[in-house]
Amino acid sequence: MIAGVAVIHLPMHRDVRGHLTELFSRDRPQPAGFVPAQWHVLASQAGTLRGMHAHALHDDLKITLAGEVVLGLKDLRRGSPSEGAGQLLGLSGAAYKGVLIPAGVAHGILAVTDSLVLVGVTLPYDGTDEFECAWNDPRLGIEWPTAPRLLSERDRQAGSLADLLAALEPHQPLWRGPGS
Amino acid sequence: MIAGVAVIHLPMHRDVRGHLTELFSRDRPQPAGFVPAQWHVLASQAGTLRGMHAHALHDDLKITLAGEVVLGLKDLRRGSPSEGAGQLLGLSGAAYKGVLIPAGVAHGILAVTDSLVLVGVTLPYDGTDEFECAWNDPRLGIEWPTAPRLLSERDRQAGSLADLLAALEPHQPLWRGPGS
Repeated sequence: MIAGVAVIHLPMHRDVRGHLTELFSRDRPQPAGFVPAQWHVLASQAGTLRGMHAHALHDDLKITLAGEVVLGLKDLRRGSPSEGAGQLLGLSGAAYKGVLIPAGVAHGILAVTDSLVLVGVTLPYDGTDEFECAWNDPRLGIEWPTAPRLLSERDRQAGSLADLLAALEPHQPLWRGPGS
Repeated sequence: MIAGVAVIHLPMHRDVRGHLTELFSRDRPQPAGFVPAQWHVLASQAGTLRGMHAHALHDDLKITLAGEVVLGLKDLRRGSPSEGAGQLLGLSGAAYKGVLIPAGVAHGILAVTDSLVLVGVTLPYDGTDEFECAWNDPRLGIEWPTAPRLLSERDRQAGSLADLLAALEPHQPLWRGPGS
């Protein structure tokens, strides 16, 4: 597991109608300390890959509301106990979880089926904290279960992991310690 | 339109992959002044009706993320310019909107198809601000497009609109003026 990545189980209150699931509470944030500035949703057709993306300043909380996705992660933080580690997480609308992705951990999300993913971010979006590299850079060491069918132009033209690390360098996404 | 009910259009940034849609931003809340304490999601099978429910103290923001629903509203606030008015709104995951429902406006949601509805609330849930009446009380004057197939026991056994008004009475959900 990548240090600082937290996976929170969200209890689903199910009945014959469907379910009611609390996603976030200001008074008892899960994970502790997460303060969302914005929420957005990503609707993705099966075969879509969004990534790899990284941020120097803000954290993401991702909750899969519907469908099946695979989340690929890579720790780019200098000094992190898991620096350089990669990880794959399968996430499903059948069992809600919140995944906190700290700044400096690159992430990509592959829609295995049509999917809806809710994303909370700790800083307002202004386009300046967005970095990317090719989803299939061999140095990522991420074994995606399938190749994507659908990519944005930005993601299709993204450079190497080395380029991403160089772009992040001046912003120093450092390991901030446990619980950060 | 019931006074104080706000319907906010949420721009969907669409491409071949699907869409990205901002749902809420702390720095420019839509509608202005809405401060969420909690977020939850309601997943409902087609034919589910959740309602009629009312709150004396907290406001709801409802966003249909997937599927088709009909939202039924009834203004129970004494002194409101639209006191006693009923309203039906059709909402769809194909065109995201946020609907602000002020305290004192009763609401019910009928899932026309399987649906996902995101709900933001302005007070933490503690079970004390929940009131209900039968979805088909004739005094509601709400012309549901179809009868529901699925109701909770609470909703099936709910009393009359008169009972609901009596239960709300000590809590006085008053009209708080435009922009409230």
